[in-house]
Amino acid sequence: MSDAYASLVIKHREIALVHSSSSTLAWDQETNLPDKAQAYRAEQIAYLSGKAHELSTSDNYEKLLASAEDSNDGSHTTLANLREWRHSFERSTQLNRDIVERDSKTSSHAKTAWIKAREQSNFSLFAPHMQKLLDLAKEKAELWGYQDETYDALLENYERGAKTRDIISIFNRFQPAIISLASDAVAKSSSNNPRKLEGPFPVEKQQELNRAVAQSIGFDLHAGRIDTTTHPFCTTLGPSDVRLTTRYYEQDFTTSLLGVMHEAGHGLYEQGLLESNFGLPSGSAISLGIHESQSLLWEAHVGRSIAFWQHWLPKAQELFPQLRDWTVEEFLQTINQATYSPIRVDADEATYDLHVLLRFNIERQLVRGDLDVKDIPAAWNESFETYFNMRPKSDSEGCLQDIHWAMGGLGYFPTYTLGNLNASQLFHAATQDASILNSYNKADFTPLLQWMRKEIHSHGSTLLPQDLMVQATGESTNPSHHLKHLSNRFLK
Amino acid sequence: MSDAYASLVIKHREIALVHSSSSTLAWDQETNLPDKAQAYRAEQIAYLSGKAHELSTSDNYEKLLASAEDSNDGSHTTLANLREWRHSFERSTQLNRDIVERDSKTSSHAKTAWIKAREQSNFSLFAPHMQKLLDLAKEKAELWGYQDETYDALLENYERGAKTRDIISIFNRFQPAIISLASDAVAKSSSNNPRKLEGPFPVEKQQELNRAVAQSIGFDLHAGRIDTTTHPFCTTLGPSDVRLTTRYYEQDFTTSLLGVMHEAGHGLYEQGLLESNFGLPSGSAISLGIHESQSLLWEAHVGRSIAFWQHWLPKAQELFPQLRDWTVEEFLQTINQATYSPIRVDADEATYDLHVLLRFNIERQLVRGDLDVKDIPAAWNESFETYFNMRPKSDSEGCLQDIHWAMGGLGYFPTYTLGNLNASQLFHAATQDASILNSYNKADFTPLLQWMRKEIHSHGSTLLPQDLMVQATGESTNPSHHLKHLSNRFLK
Repeated sequence: MSDAYASLVIKHREIALVHSSSSTLAWDQETNLPDKAQAYRAEQIAYLSGKAHELSTSDNYEKLLASAEDSNDGSHTTLANLREWRHSFERSTQLNRDIVERDSKTSSHAKTAWIKAREQSNFSLFAPHMQKLLDLAKEKAELWGYQDETYDALLENYERGAKTRDIISIFNRFQPAIISLASDAVAKSSSNNPRKLEGPFPVEKQQELNRAVAQSIGFDLHAGRIDTTTHPFCTTLGPSDVRLTTRYYEQDFTTSLLGVMHEAGHGLYEQGLLESNFGLPSGSAISLGIHESQSLLWEAHVGRSIAFWQHWLPKAQELFPQLRDWTVEEFLQTINQATYSPIRVDADEATYDLHVLLRFNIERQLVRGDLDVKDIPAAWNESFETYFNMRPKSDSEGCLQDIHWAMGGLGYFPTYTLGNLNASQLFHAATQDASILNSYNKADFTPLLQWMRKEIHSHGSTLLPQDLMVQATGESTNPSHHLKHLSNRFLK
Repeated sequence: MSDAYASLVIKHREIALVHSSSSTLAWDQETNLPDKAQAYRAEQIAYLSGKAHELSTSDNYEKLLASAEDSNDGSHTTLANLREWRHSFERSTQLNRDIVERDSKTSSHAKTAWIKAREQSNFSLFAPHMQKLLDLAKEKAELWGYQDETYDALLENYERGAKTRDIISIFNRFQPAIISLASDAVAKSSSNNPRKLEGPFPVEKQQELNRAVAQSIGFDLHAGRIDTTTHPFCTTLGPSDVRLTTRYYEQDFTTSLLGVMHEAGHGLYEQGLLESNFGLPSGSAISLGIHESQSLLWEAHVGRSIAFWQHWLPKAQELFPQLRDWTVEEFLQTINQATYSPIRVDADEATYDLHVLLRFNIERQLVRGDLDVKDIPAAWNESFETYFNMRPKSDSEGCLQDIHWAMGGLGYFPTYTLGNLNASQLFHAATQDASILNSYNKADFTPLLQWMRKEIHSHGSTLLPQDLMVQATGESTNPSHHLKHLSNRFLK
């Protein structure tokens, strides 16, 4: 190990200490913070983020990086760390202080305006902020640079190494098929007459079940926690400290359970990263499209499967006596209904990607200048009719429903569908191994996790997302696996 | 405001951001941290503490301080801040890096040894560590310097500006009287036949009562929280973020309630400091002896009083039906029994100070070289017989019961008794005002809190403890008020 490389490793461990401290404060902000403490907490987090940024963008940092690039041991891990450090350094330093500050202010004001606009279901209140966010996104994209089109530079924030043309190529293959499949699934579901879950499902019992399930799929509760928030998330506060949250409804225990399985999927990825590489790219997750593949794998391919419920319905029945006369088939029909809903976060597996495709098309048009901000509601509602054969009743259940744009997150949405496609493809590849499939069918998910550990988690950011997919499954992201999975689940 | 003084204010606000972030991590460590995350959390906290230390001990800091001392606006607050900054700077820089590191290692090993020694009730396992801690304490005291005796320099860590001779003078007046009073109180209590509380007192009902009581005495739950830990504490994570903890026993709701009132007393002090001065001496508590006076005021003078229970027993009876046929007098008799116990933390008001006097005498002898470490158990047990007319059954319920020495905390214990004495004296002074007393008797504690806000909280560290006591009560700490309070409570 060269001296410069060794110094960079030390520097990044220091940055990780600051960054993980800041993450702890942010976690506490979501779970515990008293109302009146919000302003000071924001100051604390901003201070720590600033310190972490300083450490990774100083002149000294750049010298160390250049020196380590000149002389290093040439190993796969070293080269990958240097590649990712260089990438982050360039991205950080390409933005000057002025734009970073404008960015932070603009999205802060936009978020406030978005909340109000959504409450009043009035897009025009949000439109001037959306225009500023869009202009700023384009300005940043120019500073970052891109190969083919502006959107590339934005996508890179969320999906390392992805190009818009690749996303388009995947989505072009996927879009007609999923529109048709969703339509068939909704039609088929509407002819079912599923039983309805009837509460109360006491929260403590739900928590008991959720903990048992999380542990059974391999989530280490001695190196993590499960707490309660309105918006579920997963965050990492240290190499052995991964925290999930979920929300509880007394009338439906599956929301909290499938929420925990989803977040535990993220958590298993984080817990599967090499602890000794914490804070280095080789010990960090590579992209949202890969992260989401892990959450969806455990939520959808495990948590909504017959294999899972053959084992777990009896346990649920012990906790919730009102389930005692339910069969596994009845239960699966209830939790796997396809219906068109205007709201993305309420969508089922069959219709979820339609929401994503719609958003991706709109935001790419915005960035290309093919759509004006003022025309977003009309474009949204027309697309919605094409995909869903219905129109949202209002902007608040239409183009104002998501916070992503208000936070400046242009380029984020396609990673949800990448996650879905990757999840099905990885699950397919893993279960080509008869022993993994066999265990899976007996609700023993350990071999499936071990496969993910080996093929995905342990690589950290040493491989770019598509290289990881090729190495793990023999091909880059291919929508046919997900279409097959959905067809099996909804049309058989 | 001079430029240098203004820069120091900014610097200390920065230090407060780091320090309060570290406190947040420490709070989370006690309340939420997964087992396996302990080691990394210790690294995070050590890193942040180191950063805060660097900021307040740099050469640049010293220059600013000297310059601000030379030229400033001469106001009471400015001079007090400069006095406290100078004091802290000198104390910090008098210790070199070598001794700080030895100190940290020694107390870390000592704590582990103490846990083992206490488990096995074998002082000899802890003795070599205690010797090292004592040697180190003396070495530090020499570096810090002192006027009369070594113990002064240690006491200064906990009680700003206190001198051993003053403590001795107070304790000499107090000791014979409290030994005799405790003996009478125990005798009187043993002739009572108090009713026993009978559980279960469900934890959620206890929490409901505790929150209502905490709010009613003025603790702002929008700027604070109450959580659960084995060892109750109060900590401040920001100007509007004060967190208390307590512990619950299903068989006795008064432990958690009086615990909350005690910690809320600390919390009211913290919430009463000037928010605009957060991070400056003028917005910080002055000493443990004053802090403890606030916790004991609310626990003992309010929480164990007839005025309080005349109002709150009916509320408790609504939550806990088994209390319905209790009278206030019966209830007070039950919660205010005096008995000799070997364990300090289980002690009642009448006997508590005996535990403190015993420890103070032993630790002062140790520091003076009048007692050898190996002779601690014998000295402890003999003193115990003098004070309590009984002997501990073992070292674990004798000289090994407290963690303070194992953490290097020589000089801490006397502040508990200072807290008791100050609490009674402040309560006496406040209730000389007939309207405060009148409200108090009707369980309206707002005027009492307002008096504490004005006389104690709002001063932060601008006045030293004894100056604060003189200004608030007309005299420095005087044990007669506490003796009178105990006599009224236990001997009438």
